[in-house]
This record gives sequence, C-alpha cells and structure tokens, in this order.
Amino acid sequence: MRTETVTYEADGLHFKSELFVEAGTEPKPGVLVFPEAFGLGDHARHRAEGLAKLGYAALACDIHGNGRLTADLGEALGLLKPLYADTKRMRARGLAALKMLKAREEVLADRTASIGFCFGGTMSLELARSGADLQAVVGFHSGLATTAPKTDAKAHRGRVLVCIGADDPFIAPQERTTFEEEMRGGGVDWQMHLYGGTVHSFTNREADQRKNPAMRYSEAADKESWAAMQELFSAVLFT
Amino acid sequence: MRTETVTYEADGLHFKSELFVEAGTEPKPGVLVFPEAFGLGDHARHRAEGLAKLGYAALACDIHGNGRLTADLGEALGLLKPLYADTKRMRARGLAALKMLKAREEVLADRTASIGFCFGGTMSLELARSGADLQAVVGFHSGLATTAPKTDAKAHRGRVLVCIGADDPFIAPQERTTFEEEMRGGGVDWQMHLYGGTVHSFTNREADQRKNPAMRYSEAADKESWAAMQELFSAVLFT
Repeated sequence: MRTETVTYEADGLHFKSELFVEAGTEPKPGVLVFPEAFGLGDHARHRAEGLAKLGYAALACDIHGNGRLTADLGEALGLLKPLYADTKRMRARGLAALKMLKAREEVLADRTASIGFCFGGTMSLELARSGADLQAVVGFHSGLATTAPKTDAKAHRGRVLVCIGADDPFIAPQERTTFEEEMRGGGVDWQMHLYGGTVHSFTNREADQRKNPAMRYSEAADKESWAAMQELFSAVLFT
Repeated sequence: MRTETVTYEADGLHFKSELFVEAGTEPKPGVLVFPEAFGLGDHARHRAEGLAKLGYAALACDIHGNGRLTADLGEALGLLKPLYADTKRMRARGLAALKMLKAREEVLADRTASIGFCFGGTMSLELARSGADLQAVVGFHSGLATTAPKTDAKAHRGRVLVCIGADDPFIAPQERTTFEEEMRGGGVDWQMHLYGGTVHSFTNREADQRKNPAMRYSEAADKESWAAMQELFSAVLFT
C-alpha cells in the first residue's frame, strides 16, 4: 500500500488530503472519500485504505483545510455552518479534490466516484448536484437536503446510493421523501437503502464512545452498506 | 444439481413444489422460494437453482395447488383473492412448505429463510408474521400491507429485507411508510432497499413481454437486490 499527502487550494484554504493506492502501474478507478463533520481522521482513512485494497485509488479528503480535525461536534458543525449556507463553497472544496484525483497518473480520469459519511455524504451529493463528472456517489448516514432540488437533480451524471438509518434523528422521514421526489424529478438513477433500528454514524465504531443515543455503530448496517457500495462500483467503475 | 418434486397437503389442496440441492452429504441452510402470482414457473425455479449453486437447499414452492400455473394476471389474482382476504390460508400454505423443508435431511432445520417475488414476497412476510422459525425473509417487489400490523410485527423472529421499486404503482409510498411503522413498532431487524426509476417485477426478464408499463425488468435492480439477499444470508444462515 502506498500513501501520499496531496495538497491543493480551494475556497481560500489549503487542503491536505491523502491518497491510498496499491503498488502497480495500471491506472485504476478513483474514489473520493469525504469524512464525517469532525474532519479527516482514521475512520475515513481506513475506508480509503479498504478501497485501495479493492483495487481503487482512493483520496481521503481534508474538509476543513490544513487537515484540521476536531473531536468536538459543536466545533465541527460551527466550521461547516457557512458551507451549508453556501453550497458553492462546499462544492468548490469537493471539485478541487476531484480535480486532483483525476489528474493523478494512478487514476482513470473517466472512472471516478465519491463517497462520504455524514457531512461527507452531503458533500458527495453536492458534488454530483454540481454536475461533476462522477460515475457514482454514495452517502452513508448522509444529510439528504438540497437547496435547489429542481435544478440540481437534473445535473446528476452518475448513479446515486444513499444508505440511511431509518431511526436517524438527523435525517427525518420527510427529508427522505423530499430526496426521493428530487431524484425522481431529475430522472436520476438512484437507490436508498434503509436500515431499521439504526441511527446516525452506523459505520463508525467510535460513535458509541460519544454516549449520544443519536449515534451508534451497527456492524450489520456497516457491512451491508459497504457491500452495496462495492456492488454498485463493480457495475459502473469497472465496465 | 439434484432436483426432486416434494408434495404435501395444506389448506385443502395438494401442493407440488420442487427441491433444488447440489450433491453432497452435508446438510445445508434451507430457503423457500415463493413465485409471483402466476404460480411456480421458470422464474422461481431458476432462483431456487441459483440458491442451490450458492450452497443452499432451495424449495421452489407451488402456491396455487397441483402445480397450477397461469399466464393470465387476472386469473392469478382471482386465485389469490381469498388468500389476501384470509391470511390464515396464505400462512397455512407457507407453513406446510416450511415444515417439508425443515424435515429434509439435506437441510439444517434451524437455518432457514424464505424469499419471494410479488405475491411470493407477501407470502414470505406473512410466514414471518405468523411467528414461523425463519432466520430471514426477503421480498422482491412484494406487497407490504398487513392485516394486523400491531400484533403481527411482534411475531417476527428473523431479519427482514424488502427490495422495492420506488416507482412501483402496486406499492404506494404510503404502503412503504406503514410498513416502516409496522417494523419499528415490532422491534423487527428490517431493511428496505428502494430502487429509483424501477417498477414492479424488476427481477423478471419476462415482465417486459407483458407490455404493461407497471412491470419492467431492471438488470441493475435485479442484480443488486440479489446481492443484498446473499449478503444477508451469509450473515444469518452460515453463522
């Protein structure tokens, strides 16, 4: 496994992301991995490493700039608030990461996807809504709201999979319904996998340490959503 | 591959189902396969054969008695109407099939699941709602309505996965919402996979010949829902 820090500028900030790729000279499909709100830490890094082992070149992405990582949810949400208020800024950060990924010689530029967790899932969806050239986006316990559903949905160019805890208090049933209407209206090729008895952060083993009943790891939902992502990627990235 | 006709009586009728199992002496997890409303034909047979190749003993089940099969949807629904009106009759047919499956020496009696398509999915759900000993049930484009949600949901003993076309005119969004409430109320370990741009009968290649816009094969939804079933089975039937 080869890892490399990849730096770039966007939205007035300096980003430090990390590329994971197995040795070899053949270019591979590329995947962006956006972390939860806290910033780039071990959870997203491990996912990128896992993708690299599956044969992808994976870029685990800095989201706050300067590789900033916080353990405090309030602080993280404070940092993200301006991005939710102005999705152009969120998209600028995502697009810069995608541009770096596509420019790498390890990557097949026309075979890319973006995945993300929590805020990172929203970031991946926003990238797709910007019309970015992505074969697929996958959001795990990702917020589904959009600011311009009617116009954004038509901009999607790839497939969409969102994996959601049915009891996630941050993603209300109404938000799912609105998302479904958005996807249908845009003619998007989308899927939503709902996991019963499952709340937020179900892919993250560290979630249980937060002692917040809204966040809990679920081994089954984690494993099965990851398998669903692989099934989707095998269909669109290795064709 | 070994196949064998398995006969039994239930609900005043004589059933002719078909067991598919690979050669070998080790007992295997068992899976019931209930067909679409038309009755036991090649679609369900091929699925049972596919499960046998994956290492299960699969019983493709007669649903109308005497192996009756019709190409006419109106006739099929006419045959099923009394079963929808009296789910005890539906359950009696399912339970008889399960009893036969569990009694087979090829089958691990404490490792069984039930899958089904359209009406067959409903039949599998009704089996689970009866409190039958099943590790999992999977419904593909299956009706989700129940007659006694509050009591039935509590009877579930295994995991539930339903794979539904988001644009299936036979399974309205309200029916999905009610199902979700049923599952939540019963504390069931459930999942729902929603496929955008997908209607009824998405697993059946023959659906397109019906020239009914409500029924259409989808290669992606077929393949990915089948993979999701395998992922679930690998978690609960091979432990």
